[in-house]
Amino acid sequence: MTIEYDQLKANDANFVALTPLSFLQRTADIYPDRESLIYHERRYNWAQTRARCTRIASSIAARGLGRNDTVSVFAFNTPEMFEAHFAVPMSGAVLNTINTRLDAATVSYIIDHGESKIFIVDRQLWPVLEEALATSQLKPEVIIIDDVYATDKPALPENIEFSYYEDLVERGDETFQWRAPEDEWQALTLNYTSGTTGQPKGVVYHHRGSYLMTMGTVVSWALPQHPKYLYTVPMFHCNGWGHAWTMTAVAGTVVCMRAFSPKLLFDLVEEHQVTHFGGAPIILNMLANAPESEQKLFDRTINVMTAGAPPPASVLESMTQFGFNIMHVYGLTETYGHILQAAPQQSWNDQSSVRQAELKSRQGVRFAMTEAVDVINPDNGESVPWDGETIGEIAIRGNTTMKGYLKDPAATEKAFQNNWFMSGDLAVIHEDGYIQVKDRAKDIIISGGENISSVEIEGVLYKHPAVGEAAVVALADEKWGEVPCAFVELKSGQNSSEDELIEFCGDNMARFKRPKIVVFGELPKTATGKIQKNVLREKAKDL
Amino acid sequence: MTIEYDQLKANDANFVALTPLSFLQRTADIYPDRESLIYHERRYNWAQTRARCTRIASSIAARGLGRNDTVSVFAFNTPEMFEAHFAVPMSGAVLNTINTRLDAATVSYIIDHGESKIFIVDRQLWPVLEEALATSQLKPEVIIIDDVYATDKPALPENIEFSYYEDLVERGDETFQWRAPEDEWQALTLNYTSGTTGQPKGVVYHHRGSYLMTMGTVVSWALPQHPKYLYTVPMFHCNGWGHAWTMTAVAGTVVCMRAFSPKLLFDLVEEHQVTHFGGAPIILNMLANAPESEQKLFDRTINVMTAGAPPPASVLESMTQFGFNIMHVYGLTETYGHILQAAPQQSWNDQSSVRQAELKSRQGVRFAMTEAVDVINPDNGESVPWDGETIGEIAIRGNTTMKGYLKDPAATEKAFQNNWFMSGDLAVIHEDGYIQVKDRAKDIIISGGENISSVEIEGVLYKHPAVGEAAVVALADEKWGEVPCAFVELKSGQNSSEDELIEFCGDNMARFKRPKIVVFGELPKTATGKIQKNVLREKAKDL
Repeated sequence: MTIEYDQLKANDANFVALTPLSFLQRTADIYPDRESLIYHERRYNWAQTRARCTRIASSIAARGLGRNDTVSVFAFNTPEMFEAHFAVPMSGAVLNTINTRLDAATVSYIIDHGESKIFIVDRQLWPVLEEALATSQLKPEVIIIDDVYATDKPALPENIEFSYYEDLVERGDETFQWRAPEDEWQALTLNYTSGTTGQPKGVVYHHRGSYLMTMGTVVSWALPQHPKYLYTVPMFHCNGWGHAWTMTAVAGTVVCMRAFSPKLLFDLVEEHQVTHFGGAPIILNMLANAPESEQKLFDRTINVMTAGAPPPASVLESMTQFGFNIMHVYGLTETYGHILQAAPQQSWNDQSSVRQAELKSRQGVRFAMTEAVDVINPDNGESVPWDGETIGEIAIRGNTTMKGYLKDPAATEKAFQNNWFMSGDLAVIHEDGYIQVKDRAKDIIISGGENISSVEIEGVLYKHPAVGEAAVVALADEKWGEVPCAFVELKSGQNSSEDELIEFCGDNMARFKRPKIVVFGELPKTATGKIQKNVLREKAKDL
Repeated sequence: MTIEYDQLKANDANFVALTPLSFLQRTADIYPDRESLIYHERRYNWAQTRARCTRIASSIAARGLGRNDTVSVFAFNTPEMFEAHFAVPMSGAVLNTINTRLDAATVSYIIDHGESKIFIVDRQLWPVLEEALATSQLKPEVIIIDDVYATDKPALPENIEFSYYEDLVERGDETFQWRAPEDEWQALTLNYTSGTTGQPKGVVYHHRGSYLMTMGTVVSWALPQHPKYLYTVPMFHCNGWGHAWTMTAVAGTVVCMRAFSPKLLFDLVEEHQVTHFGGAPIILNMLANAPESEQKLFDRTINVMTAGAPPPASVLESMTQFGFNIMHVYGLTETYGHILQAAPQQSWNDQSSVRQAELKSRQGVRFAMTEAVDVINPDNGESVPWDGETIGEIAIRGNTTMKGYLKDPAATEKAFQNNWFMSGDLAVIHEDGYIQVKDRAKDIIISGGENISSVEIEGVLYKHPAVGEAAVVALADEKWGEVPCAFVELKSGQNSSEDELIEFCGDNMARFKRPKIVVFGELPKTATGKIQKNVLREKAKDL
């Protein structure tokens, strides 16, 4: 053993704390004149974006904030939201983005729990914040983003002092020395998960994780230099899958989208020659079902990352006509976003288009920065066989797993078990090693002692031509314990009946799994387009 | 300050030591059937490559080796050399690759200095090792790679015991649990620099650095998934620029090249549909000057990374006809290879092809994993102005800077100054921020108090149609202190004279910079194709 190998120590030239903030410095140095952001007529290049972020960071620092101080942002996908992903941590502080659809009581909880010191809010959301501040213990300084493109412009605060976001830019110091993290494990952002029960939990990311998330995303999505990226994923959600940092690393151009509509998406993709975007399957669904007059068929490939519920094979198929090449991914707020992907295999090219869509709709295999993902029996920790049938819980290990839940040691301890982060998602592993989610642990339906996957039933329902969207939950049943109850939103102009859909399910899957009840109507959704099964579960109780 | 941010600690699920060994596990898991290596009729897929590496690692571990034990490899670019980049560190040990052109005395020095415990040698190189072992203090176990494609097959060892490399595979244990580094700062490889004076220095890489080198190379070279990579760069040189690990991360296919010839390169690029390769400018030069009957023109783009001396603009231009898209990079053994690249700018497209070649021949701007590179006045540490004229020394900071020189604290301390790694290379920064090397610190010619860049003179000489290769060194001069002396190798079939070339230089640059003497003849080169200026300097003394 040559002990001298260990005597060569780290110094400031050969060890630098990993941080995604580095990417802005590099890209602004090398491509100062390339376009960074586009939002209507507002356009910035990378030199300008760095200058603005530096000024904002200096304004935050001038207020005395630094390491481990929280800055909340309650805003839409405008340039300010993008800038916050650099400006806030450049001041040393922690960025806390908040779901724009949250109610005042939850926002109030977050202000106090996260100890928010500055609260940056889009004017349109001021009424929610105003109500939240009425009950919160802490009263952070309010900074208003006054976006001319807001559809709703409520009155500005009257009884409290506030600043405009642009003041932070104008009064900022462009020569401010941004603060690199003192160590790469330092907190970078705070993301509250929209829990379905109880108060939300504060997921903490660190600089190391987001740096590696960026690198791994470029490798596994095979991102080129200078993509044109349309930001449809809300940046308050897992920091927009980390793409603000990723697109900066590859010196891309980010097109901002304040509010989603299928027409706007098609128009922006055409106008700005967009090459990449991301979106929940509900977004894809809306694109597929948009009026033909709004749809556009592109004769080039646009790469689309989708995550959330597995996209129905029918939706995946329909994307091809638009030129959209779908990469299905899987992740959680706790894993900085995507950590699995349905990475295509050469052998898939020989399969039918239906089979290809099935293969691509699985959650898949790990990203380059992810160390290990397995599906294990949570009772004994053993891996499930690769048989496509045995259900276990997805377990994750790697450097893009959260630090933990802020001020919640019990939940943190429960999440980390046996050297794994336990996802709470139930899945199988197929013979080719690809993971497929069967359900959230709490969404599984146990009927007559048999596990029924609500996702499997939904997949069958989506194959019915009249079904626009579907969600299945457990309904308490005296005989069976639980039975499946389906909520269905029909496509506009389409008709079906409860009996027809139950029969359809019975014909297309194991008969005992078919829903016993079908309820028609609009489905409740979260801000990120996830169907709110907790709401449906409450509805089912009343049936 | 929310102190609880710092109370969330690392655990085995959210912190994993970075190591390039992870990439083999991931790629073999996801793409077991994809081709990993091609060498004549030998072909492996990723499952086989992992199995072989695991077996070899187990055989090394079974000999009692582990952390901080050195395994030397003295071999050509065959599959065994590729495997060693995984197998040796998978056993926990440190990989020490040795330049195949080194003499026995230097190899002997390396065995003792690096404390080699196992020495893997290509049979063709056994005579050198035999001689080295006669004088070395340490006697590592000898393992022979008996490649059927060796052009020279000397007698096998007679008086010492040895094993065949394939024995390590056959007797190895495929279920061996490979050893992840205990911490990411652990030594991964040991690379001796071919110093021009004194004994070579042992540059130590760590796992963190090579992991980040991989990620940054994929980002900044915009590598796709599944490239077909021809390994022309010797793997003993900066671990082949780290490309063994990089190509594994993107699940590429590596075509091995035991010995370079222009014809073989063109043939292999065609036969295997190669998409990427790397090579010193001398390699490009040989391709450009190969007989037309051996050259092939491809109607697709092949991406070529080149490093070393800046390629003459004329060579860069001539590559275009082959379909070769050149990315010029810069780095040192001490920086794991490339850390600067002549990253193309959109605005270059409007320039003339000559100007484009000039722009692309600069060393450029930093890679994604490189934190900072500057050109500074070594006397006062100040940055030089971006004027393209003021010469300073290239200073580097980042996680792909070596741990240090093994057992050489004086040299290590000298290399790290003022929070920079000092490269010893002299350069300017142009107005666009692109760095251009003017000379090695020791290669600058000081004539009449003026600095003359030998590289600048060489650049002019390369523009002369008869000049195949050129190198300029300082010649002591009573009047001027030093004057430039040029060594020139003419293209075959071409003629020129000393007077003609001196006049040509005088006409194409500041006249005082023209060489005073021109010597014709073959130029001495290192194993990696670098012209040995130290040898020429000795020759110049005798003039």
